[in-house]
Amino acid sequence: MSKGAAAEGSGEDRLIARYFRPLARHPGALGLADDAALLAPPPGCDLVLTTDGIIAGVHVFADAPADAIARRALRVNLSDLAAKGAKPAGFLLALALPAGTSEDWMAAFARGLGADAEHYGCPLLGGDTDRTPGPLSVSITAFGTLPTGTMVRRSGAGAGDALFVTGTIGDAALGLRLRQEPTAGASLTSVQRDYLLTRYLVPEPRNGLADTLRTHASAALDVSDGLAGDLSKLCRASGVSTQIDVGRVPLSDAARAFIAAEPALLERVLTGGDDYEILAAVPAGNVEGFRAGARAAGVAVTEIGHLEAGDAPPQFIAPDRRALAFERPSYSHF
Amino acid sequence: MSKGAAAEGSGEDRLIARYFRPLARHPGALGLADDAALLAPPPGCDLVLTTDGIIAGVHVFADAPADAIARRALRVNLSDLAAKGAKPAGFLLALALPAGTSEDWMAAFARGLGADAEHYGCPLLGGDTDRTPGPLSVSITAFGTLPTGTMVRRSGAGAGDALFVTGTIGDAALGLRLRQEPTAGASLTSVQRDYLLTRYLVPEPRNGLADTLRTHASAALDVSDGLAGDLSKLCRASGVSTQIDVGRVPLSDAARAFIAAEPALLERVLTGGDDYEILAAVPAGNVEGFRAGARAAGVAVTEIGHLEAGDAPPQFIAPDRRALAFERPSYSHF
Repeated sequence: MSKGAAAEGSGEDRLIARYFRPLARHPGALGLADDAALLAPPPGCDLVLTTDGIIAGVHVFADAPADAIARRALRVNLSDLAAKGAKPAGFLLALALPAGTSEDWMAAFARGLGADAEHYGCPLLGGDTDRTPGPLSVSITAFGTLPTGTMVRRSGAGAGDALFVTGTIGDAALGLRLRQEPTAGASLTSVQRDYLLTRYLVPEPRNGLADTLRTHASAALDVSDGLAGDLSKLCRASGVSTQIDVGRVPLSDAARAFIAAEPALLERVLTGGDDYEILAAVPAGNVEGFRAGARAAGVAVTEIGHLEAGDAPPQFIAPDRRALAFERPSYSHF
Repeated sequence: MSKGAAAEGSGEDRLIARYFRPLARHPGALGLADDAALLAPPPGCDLVLTTDGIIAGVHVFADAPADAIARRALRVNLSDLAAKGAKPAGFLLALALPAGTSEDWMAAFARGLGADAEHYGCPLLGGDTDRTPGPLSVSITAFGTLPTGTMVRRSGAGAGDALFVTGTIGDAALGLRLRQEPTAGASLTSVQRDYLLTRYLVPEPRNGLADTLRTHASAALDVSDGLAGDLSKLCRASGVSTQIDVGRVPLSDAARAFIAAEPALLERVLTGGDDYEILAAVPAGNVEGFRAGARAAGVAVTEIGHLEAGDAPPQFIAPDRRALAFERPSYSHF
């Protein structure tokens, strides 16, 4: 509650001028020199809004590199925009910094954030910076645009639709395990370890697939709380069910090697969070077009099953035809 | 980094369903059952974006009533929309809850939030809820709309414009002093104490004035970091200067009584934060219309001076004609 330094050239002003103003080149950011930002969605467009935060010690390790924390914070929001079929339009940053945050840390954070903002065409529009007695918190609100009425919902899937996922599943959950227990995965090569750790630290949002999802998918969401849990959400919202052969879930070589050494990790692969791949339902008549769009976007997609009528919770079926029972079906903070 | 309970009927789901879904009646909120929200600004409109957060122990006392914390978190954002001339369209809520947050606390928080969302026509559109090992954090991103190109900037003021403030200045800073030092203000009546404490706890955003600002003001911002500091910002952004007779700054009876007993508090009144009144520059030809608009909106406005050419920092002039020198000209977190 203390009242601090002067606002003319205050620490907050300097911090914004030094690290964030260079990122705010979009005209709607008003140079971060006003109290609000402006966004004018193109006529005939809806604005898609999403907000997702990172708290050090909860969503990332507090000693993770600053540029990776920034990228991750932006990318988890970009992933939501991708899954909904929206094109990134910009973001607001709410930053709570613990005392003692260094200039080096700030510079690296801004560098990572700026690089991704540029790469994904999602400019910084504004924000809010505070000191906190608690851990670092990075809360981003991202905006996307799409033609009116075309947002891909969770709830649009129908019986008979094919189920696709992008990329590979479980890498981030296995990377987290390596981060938590460095002695795990002794049989992995260093390349495999690095791959899994990187997949955990900085997700790869699938924004290249957004247009294809919008034109071909009946429902989609990004897999952030684990494939099992997010599949349940899609099925519940759409009023459908499914049984997925576990063998059809796409795994990286590193994940296969890790599971081979430690079979119990399969549950972690299917239920761990942080994949930031996309799970999509695609009506039969759209499957060919969906595959072609994904190919053109350079995004690997794998058909993992089909949806069926019914409200039974989705199941994963092992090679011996038994349904897997998970101890913890999905990630939740509560 | 722990992986928690199941997502099907997880604590997070229950929390959202119980406390926040009832608030999310706007169709764009999609019942808080999707990964993103939708907003379709009317044709010919800009969207105004603002984000402002509250951290317990930094912006509010941690033991402040939950409903007041919720109201305050929304109102500080509504105040930005008001100052920019925008009509509230909705908001996103990013909530980080410490362990042990009770159901009673959540219920009161949601009740306060819902009441203000209703009152100000600013519906909950979506959000993000996390556990934090740190203090409670409530970060709100609010959206407003206005006709394209009509946002009231900080930078539009010109020499000769009249300067207005809404309401009274310094009440919140004096309320904070009472909160910090309950033995202060011994000569105040209990009505005066309650008034100042309430003004500190729950600001009164001036959204009724938004249209009048948009049509009559050349520049405006809300007074959140103290009148002196925010006046400096307006002058810097607009390239103008001013000298304000301290006697023209509108004070409540309670503030007058407190300053009479403790004259040093005048600095605190002029430089303390949390007023959430609006400071506006109004060209001479618009003054009459501005006053009429404010009267129609039921918002008290006071002309405190005029802007002049020059880039000298604005000054406050005491009755003895000396310029006041402030120890801490403005609130800053850094």
